[in-house]
Amino acid sequence: MNLRPLQLQNNADRRLRAGHLWIYSNEVDNQATPLKAFEPGEQVVVQDARGKALGIASVNPNTLICGRMLSRDLRYPLDRSLLVHRFKVAQSLREMCFDQPCYRLIFGDADLLPGLVVDRFYDIFVVQISSAGMEQLQQEIVDALNKVFQPQAIVFRNDGKMRATEGLETYVEVVQGEVPELAPLMENGVNLLAPILTGQKTGWFYDHRENRARMQTLVKGKRVLDLFSYVGGWGAQALAAGAREVVCVDASVTALEVAAENARINEGETRFRGLQGDAFDLCKALVADKERFDVVIVDPPAFIARRKDIRNGERAYARINNLAMRLLEKDGTLISASCSMHLEKSRLVDILRANSRELDRNGQIFAQGSQGSDHPIHPAIPETEYLKAYFMRVLPSG
Amino acid sequence: MNLRPLQLQNNADRRLRAGHLWIYSNEVDNQATPLKAFEPGEQVVVQDARGKALGIASVNPNTLICGRMLSRDLRYPLDRSLLVHRFKVAQSLREMCFDQPCYRLIFGDADLLPGLVVDRFYDIFVVQISSAGMEQLQQEIVDALNKVFQPQAIVFRNDGKMRATEGLETYVEVVQGEVPELAPLMENGVNLLAPILTGQKTGWFYDHRENRARMQTLVKGKRVLDLFSYVGGWGAQALAAGAREVVCVDASVTALEVAAENARINEGETRFRGLQGDAFDLCKALVADKERFDVVIVDPPAFIARRKDIRNGERAYARINNLAMRLLEKDGTLISASCSMHLEKSRLVDILRANSRELDRNGQIFAQGSQGSDHPIHPAIPETEYLKAYFMRVLPSG
Repeated sequence: MNLRPLQLQNNADRRLRAGHLWIYSNEVDNQATPLKAFEPGEQVVVQDARGKALGIASVNPNTLICGRMLSRDLRYPLDRSLLVHRFKVAQSLREMCFDQPCYRLIFGDADLLPGLVVDRFYDIFVVQISSAGMEQLQQEIVDALNKVFQPQAIVFRNDGKMRATEGLETYVEVVQGEVPELAPLMENGVNLLAPILTGQKTGWFYDHRENRARMQTLVKGKRVLDLFSYVGGWGAQALAAGAREVVCVDASVTALEVAAENARINEGETRFRGLQGDAFDLCKALVADKERFDVVIVDPPAFIARRKDIRNGERAYARINNLAMRLLEKDGTLISASCSMHLEKSRLVDILRANSRELDRNGQIFAQGSQGSDHPIHPAIPETEYLKAYFMRVLPSG
Repeated sequence: MNLRPLQLQNNADRRLRAGHLWIYSNEVDNQATPLKAFEPGEQVVVQDARGKALGIASVNPNTLICGRMLSRDLRYPLDRSLLVHRFKVAQSLREMCFDQPCYRLIFGDADLLPGLVVDRFYDIFVVQISSAGMEQLQQEIVDALNKVFQPQAIVFRNDGKMRATEGLETYVEVVQGEVPELAPLMENGVNLLAPILTGQKTGWFYDHRENRARMQTLVKGKRVLDLFSYVGGWGAQALAAGAREVVCVDASVTALEVAAENARINEGETRFRGLQGDAFDLCKALVADKERFDVVIVDPPAFIARRKDIRNGERAYARINNLAMRLLEKDGTLISASCSMHLEKSRLVDILRANSRELDRNGQIFAQGSQGSDHPIHPAIPETEYLKAYFMRVLPSG
């Protein structure tokens, strides 16, 4: 291998030495190694300002994050062989934690494969590539998956938002095998279906697995409201756990159709109701109608995509949690989640606190959850931690 | 009821209105209502600077936290009747979450009973009082427990460190019934014994319940090291879950004797070893002997009791986690906990990160835990959240 060097400025090696994987474009010594001279996706040897090699990264000269560390061992660039190794290491964690092959197999940086996500639905593998470096390795990724897992099918869901930034085209392709419109999966012992070709992201959000498992312990015989339900990840599991009634609210008709199907396969069709529309508007209508629920789940899309959205995003979280709380029975349970990395946990707690006080209720947070074990956290990369869920009993004030 | 007023200074009502329960001595209007005029433990009507009543608090004129809100309804001071109500509300949460009556029934502020802790071991109730206000209500607490639970026995473990600050005597007393030296309990399906009269705090730490449940899923056939084991809360559950060998390390001979007994009742005596001594010293010796474990549990006592201990405490956490990591097999699991409220979660993550890098290992945090549901968090009182546990796979660097 003859990789070209990418030289960093003074001190720009510190974050990498601390374990982080990202290089920002203003950290490159553009005189020694002009960024624009590299091809998007090219692998390079990263050097500190004194020329000492730190490892191998892929480069994209056109993005703010211009480098992503792929290997700290100069003998091993990222190729089919290293992908096989990384896949096996990732698999061993998932097999330690889960008894069914339904999980996020690769969670990007945290599995030392920046720009790559692979979700597994039994023997169907759904791949999402979001960096130029990974895009170069499409064939190697397919080969490595075949070597380790012999998949029935491989889908590229290469239609994520990040791709435009990286200068990559947007496409969805079944690159191997055949896939059904709805792929089966199991989560917390419940059979479910995910629209892997047309749904959000890879079709399913495995990250809430543990929070949904806890939810299952709380809903038997209860009336449950699932806001921003998507295909009923929470709602259908609530039905499987014996909820008396589940109302799923979502803006998408097609998502609610899959939610209804997920209800049906769990023998919950008569206890299921889908409400299509804006969650804020529908909550207001439910409040006006004096509807009450024992458990309300607030699991919205990220209201804070970028740092500059924090203020408005926090207001949106406050409003939807306020509405949710007003829909609770007098000692109901609010399950309030956020997948916004930029929303601090303490801010979400404070939003819950402020709403409790405003409604003259007494909140008691009896559990908190994070992303599941198939979404591990890289201890040097705070950005890998993003999901939070709070379970709060909302009691009369006293 | 003719309670005397306690008048606050301007703006000192804001934290209370936000839901907090504590009044600091410098927030009292000492001209209008001199603190020294109150009896320790006396209940008062708290008023804002304009004389508007906020609720009822107990007062201790001699402590920094001079008032603790007991009730926001002026009709109801804290008496037997309100204790009965609070106990029932607390019980309903525990019954929602646990299938055995072994739990922390009352977790102070978070159950709106500041200064009171009650741990339950089936029908034995262990009470800890840490405020002058609760000390006044000893008889009412016993009466209310009898009314709601008809306990077999009630123990006052009134020997906590906070009592001296509040001007209270230190004593342990079986106030009702008879208790065995070791009280039986069940946690995560495992039968265990707790030294409720002579052990630390109430004899048992229920707060790690969920973290130990997760640990149980990781140890089958594994060699496990349990540092600061106390009576083997982790170690005995690891044995029950099929660990190949468990080494418990603790400074206390008597704690290790109970740990051995907990191993024995779980048919683990031949797989159990107790090592008495300083955990740091013993870890160094194990490192020198090239001992290796699949799972190492670091669950030390609070190294940071007060804010001023943060610096030294963080160093101690760093040192013990470094030693623990060096004792791991090449893809072992570190379970690293802290019960220091003053240790930020992000600081503990950074300690784990720094140690991984120093040892040229790659850490992957695949789970994080908090205190169990019988230690709820009051959303207005950050001090009620204190426990954290990280589960980190420690892999070879790559």
